[in-house]
Amino acid sequence: MAAHPTTHAYYGHREEESGVLLKLLVLFLGLGVGVLAVAAVWMGASAQEARNDAKRAAANAATASPAATDSSMPGMAMPATTEGARATPSFAGIAPANADALATAHKALPAELPAAAPGPVVNVHLGISHRVLSVAPGIKYEAWTFSGGVPGPVIHARQGQTVRVTLTNNSPMPHSVDFHAARIAPDKAFVDILPKKSFTFSFKVNDAGVYMYHCGTKPVLAHIANGMYGAIVVDPANPRLLPPVHHSYVLVSGEWYLNAPGDTKPAGLDLVKARQMTPDWVTWNGYAAQYVKRPLTAHPGHTTRFYVVDAGPSLNTDFHVVGTLLQRAWVDGAVTDPPEHGVQTVTVPAGGGAIFDVNITKPGLYPFVTHSFASVDMGAVGLLKVGDVAGTMSH
Amino acid sequence: MAAHPTTHAYYGHREEESGVLLKLLVLFLGLGVGVLAVAAVWMGASAQEARNDAKRAAANAATASPAATDSSMPGMAMPATTEGARATPSFAGIAPANADALATAHKALPAELPAAAPGPVVNVHLGISHRVLSVAPGIKYEAWTFSGGVPGPVIHARQGQTVRVTLTNNSPMPHSVDFHAARIAPDKAFVDILPKKSFTFSFKVNDAGVYMYHCGTKPVLAHIANGMYGAIVVDPANPRLLPPVHHSYVLVSGEWYLNAPGDTKPAGLDLVKARQMTPDWVTWNGYAAQYVKRPLTAHPGHTTRFYVVDAGPSLNTDFHVVGTLLQRAWVDGAVTDPPEHGVQTVTVPAGGGAIFDVNITKPGLYPFVTHSFASVDMGAVGLLKVGDVAGTMSH
Amino acid sequence: MAAHPTTHAYYGHREEESGVLLKLLVLFLGLGVGVLAVAAVWMGASAQEARNDAKRAAANAATASPAATDSSMPGMAMPATTEGARATPSFAGIAPANADALATAHKALPAELPAAAPGPVVNVHLGISHRVLSVAPGIKYEAWTFSGGVPGPVIHARQGQTVRVTLTNNSPMPHSVDFHAARIAPDKAFVDILPKKSFTFSFKVNDAGVYMYHCGTKPVLAHIANGMYGAIVVDPANPRLLPPVHHSYVLVSGEWYLNAPGDTKPAGLDLVKARQMTPDWVTWNGYAAQYVKRPLTAHPGHTTRFYVVDAGPSLNTDFHVVGTLLQRAWVDGAVTDPPEHGVQTVTVPAGGGAIFDVNITKPGLYPFVTHSFASVDMGAVGLLKVGDVAGTMSH
Repeated sequence: MAAHPTTHAYYGHREEESGVLLKLLVLFLGLGVGVLAVAAVWMGASAQEARNDAKRAAANAATASPAATDSSMPGMAMPATTEGARATPSFAGIAPANADALATAHKALPAELPAAAPGPVVNVHLGISHRVLSVAPGIKYEAWTFSGGVPGPVIHARQGQTVRVTLTNNSPMPHSVDFHAARIAPDKAFVDILPKKSFTFSFKVNDAGVYMYHCGTKPVLAHIANGMYGAIVVDPANPRLLPPVHHSYVLVSGEWYLNAPGDTKPAGLDLVKARQMTPDWVTWNGYAAQYVKRPLTAHPGHTTRFYVVDAGPSLNTDFHVVGTLLQRAWVDGAVTDPPEHGVQTVTVPAGGGAIFDVNITKPGLYPFVTHSFASVDMGAVGLLKVGDVAGTMSH
Repeated sequence: MAAHPTTHAYYGHREEESGVLLKLLVLFLGLGVGVLAVAAVWMGASAQEARNDAKRAAANAATASPAATDSSMPGMAMPATTEGARATPSFAGIAPANADALATAHKALPAELPAAAPGPVVNVHLGISHRVLSVAPGIKYEAWTFSGGVPGPVIHARQGQTVRVTLTNNSPMPHSVDFHAARIAPDKAFVDILPKKSFTFSFKVNDAGVYMYHCGTKPVLAHIANGMYGAIVVDPANPRLLPPVHHSYVLVSGEWYLNAPGDTKPAGLDLVKARQMTPDWVTWNGYAAQYVKRPLTAHPGHTTRFYVVDAGPSLNTDFHVVGTLLQRAWVDGAVTDPPEHGVQTVTVPAGGGAIFDVNITKPGLYPFVTHSFASVDMGAVGLLKVGDVAGTMSH
Repeated sequence: MAAHPTTHAYYGHREEESGVLLKLLVLFLGLGVGVLAVAAVWMGASAQEARNDAKRAAANAATASPAATDSSMPGMAMPATTEGARATPSFAGIAPANADALATAHKALPAELPAAAPGPVVNVHLGISHRVLSVAPGIKYEAWTFSGGVPGPVIHARQGQTVRVTLTNNSPMPHSVDFHAARIAPDKAFVDILPKKSFTFSFKVNDAGVYMYHCGTKPVLAHIANGMYGAIVVDPANPRLLPPVHHSYVLVSGEWYLNAPGDTKPAGLDLVKARQMTPDWVTWNGYAAQYVKRPLTAHPGHTTRFYVVDAGPSLNTDFHVVGTLLQRAWVDGAVTDPPEHGVQTVTVPAGGGAIFDVNITKPGLYPFVTHSFASVDMGAVGLLKVGDVAGTMSH
């Protein structure tokens, strides 16, 4: 077997390469700007125009596609060419020099499903605030948050409970919250709350599954894109509908549309990009590739359940786990209906949810992604570490 | 409870704000142009280039994203900042000053499912013509139409009937019609009809469900994007497959790609935008947010059925009703198969159809959207008004 | 009946037109550049800027949308206006003058499902090489390939067999292969193989269906976009799960993102376009509209099965066959679950697969597409020729 032992297809990095390869990679990486200039000339534009176009394209690319600069992010970086070295980034000016250290320093958001609340009423307090958050190594964003993070807290209830939501607006603009698990009049419950005000409403969760919640204040596109979303899991009263498993994780997909690179100062929302559905970063639980550095874990032979919500605001998620099949897939989160069995990839709509079980017997590192790979390139990748295997980032 | 009584999260507008909020909003709205200039400078472009880039981006945005300027359209406008005032629009030059009046004046297309035709043969006459239509308040488009409107007429048949289609081409170019409900040789039936000519063909509807019809003349992308599409509903011979309900509505999703703003003179198709799937407007039944001004209605406790067709031409629809769950969802319109139950959001593919039942007991205003919120921002939102509640546009 | 006998809605071409029509078409085609200039002026840009913007847009469009220039490609070209003549292309500079001849000369990739391998072990040899391939008439691309073509070879196994994959890297950079049909540790099996090296791994196919395989070397987006993907079909041990049919075809959808027109010299990957999900070409089995020139065939009354894989890298496929319904649709390829029946269009996620049966009794030409028509405009169309009917390209 000739495969380099420390080289992993999805998440490893390369430690040795030939000079030929290095040259090829540099050539390839040069395309980002070089070919654009050539192409522009080919189109009949003058040299000056070509140069301008290339610059514009490069600048555009720099904002549009920062992921490629960070070789610490498996699945989306150009492979490093020699021990300790990095390939020349194809898109310059975004990733800070210390991206690796920053990624390592980032404390990954726990993805474990918290315990369900006891008693007949689940009290949920959501304090809305605007905060600068990291969305990728070294990239800061002026987010709008439920309870200080993106996504907001995972709420775990049981069918039949009453969820009592208290929203407190500590931000300088109106916000609201819309629960997909609720059967309630939106004009009574999902109303705008002014700054410094609080509002409480309740609903009974009659429908088991995993649901999105999000700010419903207009323009909703901006409020979701700025981070105001989260997940609520509702266990069925009949446990046979969703058999108990060993590991349960909640993954919320979200897109970030940046109006600036976000490294020297925090970025905000680029509404044109949001309308054109061309994000800069796509994340599981708000931060690019955080579960690559700090994988989720499972024991071999145990079943792992992913509660997946696609918060969008706009792109669908094509959920896939590399190296296995989705043993059971409750498509659209319909737990009262029979799941699909043994499928490779299932679409979760924006604003939708689904539940996926995998049962992996062989120790190893299993990436989970949306198989719409443009999004993986922008951060929509994580790892499930099954058994006692070596960490993913060995350099 | 601190919520402002006349402020609704999805469809209201704001009547009072603090000065701090006003300032913040103006700042936020200024991003559209300002940050682009800053970003361009940051990229190393000269000040002059930066200014040009910002202008270009703003101009681009003006064409690309007219929705944001119209605060009369719930779910997509920046909230007004003071009583009677509007926030400075982030994208200038599109919405006419009298957008509100225009939206109110617009006569919403009836969405009610018409009665099924009696007898063994359903005669359908489709007169093709090119007409200037309104697609949003104050926005005109040079559309290609079946029978003068977009979408074309809803056809309602019963399984086993024969549909006899007569196509008359009153336009200056060839057109055709392709029925997804038909099992028929396309090269015999879906043929191009020359200007001033007529053509008749028949097919038996053996398959119950809701189906798209559309012009199949090449380039089909252009013919659909210009408005040549509609829906046919086929009731199952076995009524138990699709139990009777109290309210039935037909919603056809369609994207508009404008080569000009469309306010001073009618826009036409921008084929590049259509290929890049970046529409300017996304509509239910051809006109942005028409059912916000003039909601569909239902009685509390009654079941409402939505026959949804996604005419595209390209984007999928992630159907969702705010404030409730889809009680029954015949995914892909497969009425002979069991529906999903109790789901929040279901994808309807471009060129596909699905049937959704909701049962809402509490009076209120329930928005229906594609939860791909970029599209909501461009008009893909309507209201279901349950019970005797106040109108949606109270200002 | 007034329809022109040699004019077909989806795949014909036009042989006679009135002068009025010609004028209209030229006008329409002029929009690509003309209206852009007008629009730019309208936006307040100076005439000079407007001219520049229009040129830039046109240049961009030339790269972005080559399909429109080739009237030989049914379903995506502007109709020719007179016998032997072509409408002025809206996007100049891409299609070679001899596109028709080139398309005819192209040898379509066989889509027939090959016989399943006998015995307990299926030996698969994949030789990786970088090669210049045609992706559309006259358009060349520097592809990365499994075994010299795109997609790679179809692998046909039976549930319970062992698939033994030998990967030999004859290219100058590392590559790997990830099989969606395998339950295997990715960090052990889907590992990067260095140039001039080989690697063998085995897995038992326990799950029937149709699955994608692809290079999993980072950035995966680039490796898939450059052509490193294919399909594996796994027959169920229980044949009743997937009843035998008369005709079986394998269709792999793939997007091409070109950094140059590709006509004078081969194009390579434009990573920005790939991230923005704006392809230049979308293909069934790697070459635009190849099964329009050389249709797949079926006998009237026989059942035809399509094994569909969406290789992406990013866009979903909304599978539809014009003129019929999907008789049985194993959504997500879940053959152990009951299929949908009688549906018009079904979404196949990027990185996913599905199996569709059609039964067509009437001789004719039945196009198969993704009904996301932007993609059809870029090549995602083919024909199923049922019975002894005339060829599709009669001019």
